[in-house]
Amino acid sequence: MPNGAQILIEGLVDAGVEVCFAHPGTSAAHIVAALDDVPRMRPVLCLVEGVATGAADGYARIAEKPACTLLHRGAGLANGLAHLHNARRAGTPVVNIVGDHAPRHHRLDAPLESDITSLARTVSGWTRRTYQVTELAGDVAETVAAAYGPPGAVATLVVPADVSSSEADKSSGTGRGEVAEILQKGPRSRTGAVPSAAVAAAAEVLRSGEPAVLLLGGAATHGPGLHAAARVAAATGARLLCEPFPARLERGAGLPPVERLACGTADAFAQLADVRHLLLAGATTPAAVAAYPDQHGRQVPVGRLIPDGCEVWSLAEGTEDVTAALEALAGAFDPPRPVPQKSPRRPGRPTGELTAESAAAAIGALLPEGAIVVDESNTSGLWLPDATAGAPPHDWLTLTGGAIGQGLPAAVGAALAAPDRPVLALEADGSAMHTPQALWTMAREELDVTVVVFDNRSYSALGLELMSTGADPDGERAADLLELSRPDLDFVGLARALGVPAEQATTAEEFTALLNRALAEPGPYLVDCDVPRAGV
Amino acid sequence: MPNGAQILIEGLVDAGVEVCFAHPGTSAAHIVAALDDVPRMRPVLCLVEGVATGAADGYARIAEKPACTLLHRGAGLANGLAHLHNARRAGTPVVNIVGDHAPRHHRLDAPLESDITSLARTVSGWTRRTYQVTELAGDVAETVAAAYGPPGAVATLVVPADVSSSEADKSSGTGRGEVAEILQKGPRSRTGAVPSAAVAAAAEVLRSGEPAVLLLGGAATHGPGLHAAARVAAATGARLLCEPFPARLERGAGLPPVERLACGTADAFAQLADVRHLLLAGATTPAAVAAYPDQHGRQVPVGRLIPDGCEVWSLAEGTEDVTAALEALAGAFDPPRPVPQKSPRRPGRPTGELTAESAAAAIGALLPEGAIVVDESNTSGLWLPDATAGAPPHDWLTLTGGAIGQGLPAAVGAALAAPDRPVLALEADGSAMHTPQALWTMAREELDVTVVVFDNRSYSALGLELMSTGADPDGERAADLLELSRPDLDFVGLARALGVPAEQATTAEEFTALLNRALAEPGPYLVDCDVPRAGV
Repeated sequence: MPNGAQILIEGLVDAGVEVCFAHPGTSAAHIVAALDDVPRMRPVLCLVEGVATGAADGYARIAEKPACTLLHRGAGLANGLAHLHNARRAGTPVVNIVGDHAPRHHRLDAPLESDITSLARTVSGWTRRTYQVTELAGDVAETVAAAYGPPGAVATLVVPADVSSSEADKSSGTGRGEVAEILQKGPRSRTGAVPSAAVAAAAEVLRSGEPAVLLLGGAATHGPGLHAAARVAAATGARLLCEPFPARLERGAGLPPVERLACGTADAFAQLADVRHLLLAGATTPAAVAAYPDQHGRQVPVGRLIPDGCEVWSLAEGTEDVTAALEALAGAFDPPRPVPQKSPRRPGRPTGELTAESAAAAIGALLPEGAIVVDESNTSGLWLPDATAGAPPHDWLTLTGGAIGQGLPAAVGAALAAPDRPVLALEADGSAMHTPQALWTMAREELDVTVVVFDNRSYSALGLELMSTGADPDGERAADLLELSRPDLDFVGLARALGVPAEQATTAEEFTALLNRALAEPGPYLVDCDVPRAGV
Repeated sequence: MPNGAQILIEGLVDAGVEVCFAHPGTSAAHIVAALDDVPRMRPVLCLVEGVATGAADGYARIAEKPACTLLHRGAGLANGLAHLHNARRAGTPVVNIVGDHAPRHHRLDAPLESDITSLARTVSGWTRRTYQVTELAGDVAETVAAAYGPPGAVATLVVPADVSSSEADKSSGTGRGEVAEILQKGPRSRTGAVPSAAVAAAAEVLRSGEPAVLLLGGAATHGPGLHAAARVAAATGARLLCEPFPARLERGAGLPPVERLACGTADAFAQLADVRHLLLAGATTPAAVAAYPDQHGRQVPVGRLIPDGCEVWSLAEGTEDVTAALEALAGAFDPPRPVPQKSPRRPGRPTGELTAESAAAAIGALLPEGAIVVDESNTSGLWLPDATAGAPPHDWLTLTGGAIGQGLPAAVGAALAAPDRPVLALEADGSAMHTPQALWTMAREELDVTVVVFDNRSYSALGLELMSTGADPDGERAADLLELSRPDLDFVGLARALGVPAEQATTAEEFTALLNRALAEPGPYLVDCDVPRAGV
């Protein structure tokens, strides 16, 4: 008879979960052993849990199905929480497996004892703990179903070692039938409903002719949703924007152009000036990242990115089928009109000084068709949207939850989800230093990831915030706390130490040449892009 | 008038908290700015939060007073939780400052919004959120008092940005008087009570003449507690052991020798064979790290490290003064007898093959007087206790909570707490890869830390666990998941990239020479110690 660990792995692969991002501990020894019994599951070793969880997020954003993690008890889960937070914000399905020890061990308060459930609930749409091996197959299926949603969610299953190691008797079987049944008609349906009343109300709003914006989020930023939204825009004059941090935005030549709503109040207000109606299509009401006093010490009165006089309407929420809603909305207006598409247009290859702007031009000039861009470039990313807008079609993944260090792990996951597509990870230096361990997994799995580190030797975003507080511009201790120099970080040496070839570029020509080479070669490559900091 | 950030920093330094391990975010911009206004606080920049929290733990274990952290919202706290867990297990006082945005921003569910309080409570003995700047000075003082204990605890204070940025009016003042008052007669006293009844009961147990062990933990593993315990042992024939993972054990020549209780059931049972009474002196009832089925698939029936027939007594608990209790207990037996002391004895400098055993001999041969050893050597550490037992007096810090990756951060903190003492961090390779970013802070702060990485290219501890599950020894996928090769990690390159000079040793002679050089030089140095894995 199979043991619990084998039932777990079989249940996961039967439900379509075929990649396991693991940082195992003693609680998972049987699960690790079971990987040799169920070869359909691909284990991917990560040096820290944050790599595993960020990779699971990146994987599912591309694969459109969940991977699983394998973490060790509360401390391992804690190390992975930040990127589960980002996954939660992205609506990414993640099957989060946490190994634990047997329940009767808890009362002994052993060194690693901690409150796994409370930790898990801060990021999970679903949390389950299995107590009996006979319940495991059903729990696995329900957990996978909960991850799929809609909306996609982090679904956590805590598996104690006594469950993993127990053999199932005949009556419990392997649970395969149960898995199939729950996934077919489980607690949540895998396709959301079409919100007919909201569609009708939206059509009426748009018929008013008053200035309107469709704010796209979730699946509405993928091809079919974008095309339907563009038909609505063409028919009604509504403008298209997408949420500030889309989980995956399809863009480039041939796709309807969609600008991102700014994440700061002033810029967003400018984008939405005179807009009377904001229709949320898979997006939530946008809020500023920070509720922050301004440079005059005044508390900013609102953090919503909605100007006065703009009314907010919901076309489709996370549990609903936003693509179908947009198609229904487009169908309410006929005859169909030509839908604008972004024309192919690339910047020329830059020369001269290497700056965030010239680096963006090089990226726009070279970005390959079908590329997956994982963007954690922060202040260095200002010129990227324009420079790449007319590049061949590509996907753009952003930092949905603001927890930095997600880029390199997400690139690992994206590359595993789409082995035939080039992945370009654009990293701010400070963010990259959160999870450089992801480079080792790129080398180990021979992933075709090109990493660009925008190396400006500072937490530049924080510097801008600091200035906005009215802090003493000559304050040396504050400034020093935002410096990544003293000593300078050697990203080339760091990458090579972790098995990834790397070079530094100090001119636009060098950067273009290195980027070209890195994109052409299989396997990972890191380009250290030596740029001045923002505002310098 | 000062603003909240200035009141916060002033309150902390007035309460003796003078080092701030920071990974700041936008929520802390005013606090960062205030560091220029209150120069008595020393800010130490950490590249990730786990370095900040582990450093705060290591600092307080040596300084015997808390440092503070400075973390950014829930995601930043999450990244630091694992080493706050270790600090909690160590009974270390830590003042854990978490920046947040203004309360009125929470309802907007901005990208970084998460449940800070639930996260904090999993590791904190005290959690407080300040809502008004007028309450801040008092909250700071209470938080520091809660951190001191006894027992020492992680005390979390969540400081919203609107509190940091608000100016205090005259009635609130700077709160200096309030801080002093609360710290003097606060909610918790800084010295625990002496448990007279427990002392009397223990004396009676020991007078029975039946085989007894004093299990030392907490402050009982520091000099005064050890000496008092040794007087008890000399008078009664009781044996001295300390808990499996002491927060700080003073040991070496001239100190009473104390063996650590094993953390595995079989070894601990052997150490306690025939023992009839176990007296807990600052220690808790010891439990095995894992509740784990044995190699025959049987669930291990108990996880307590106490054999049948051994009765457990409590001499002093975490809230009580264990040193005074041991002194009172010693006083119950007179006249005083000579107390055994460890004789000076060092192994000779090893030659030939470099192994965990010969490396331990080199460490024993060279360990300087007053050294602080941070031990996260895991399976490579087997020979260390014997090899160093007769070295000059030193402190030994262990991984109290089992959450790996604590060693390098704790070494940062220990070195800042005792700038005149050499720090030796003994790291397993897998553990070191959790928080290699700590190396950069060592370089930045020019800390005198010698790092030894036991580089056996595997998660050797997990390999041993895997074998104990009865897993297929030829299972390639399981074995691969415990391998740190493919590619090999280049710790020398990694350290140099982070600003720390480093060399690899492949023979015992090379290791001895490099260790000697590293210990003699100021500033950090990493020695990659190329050893075979356990069992090879």
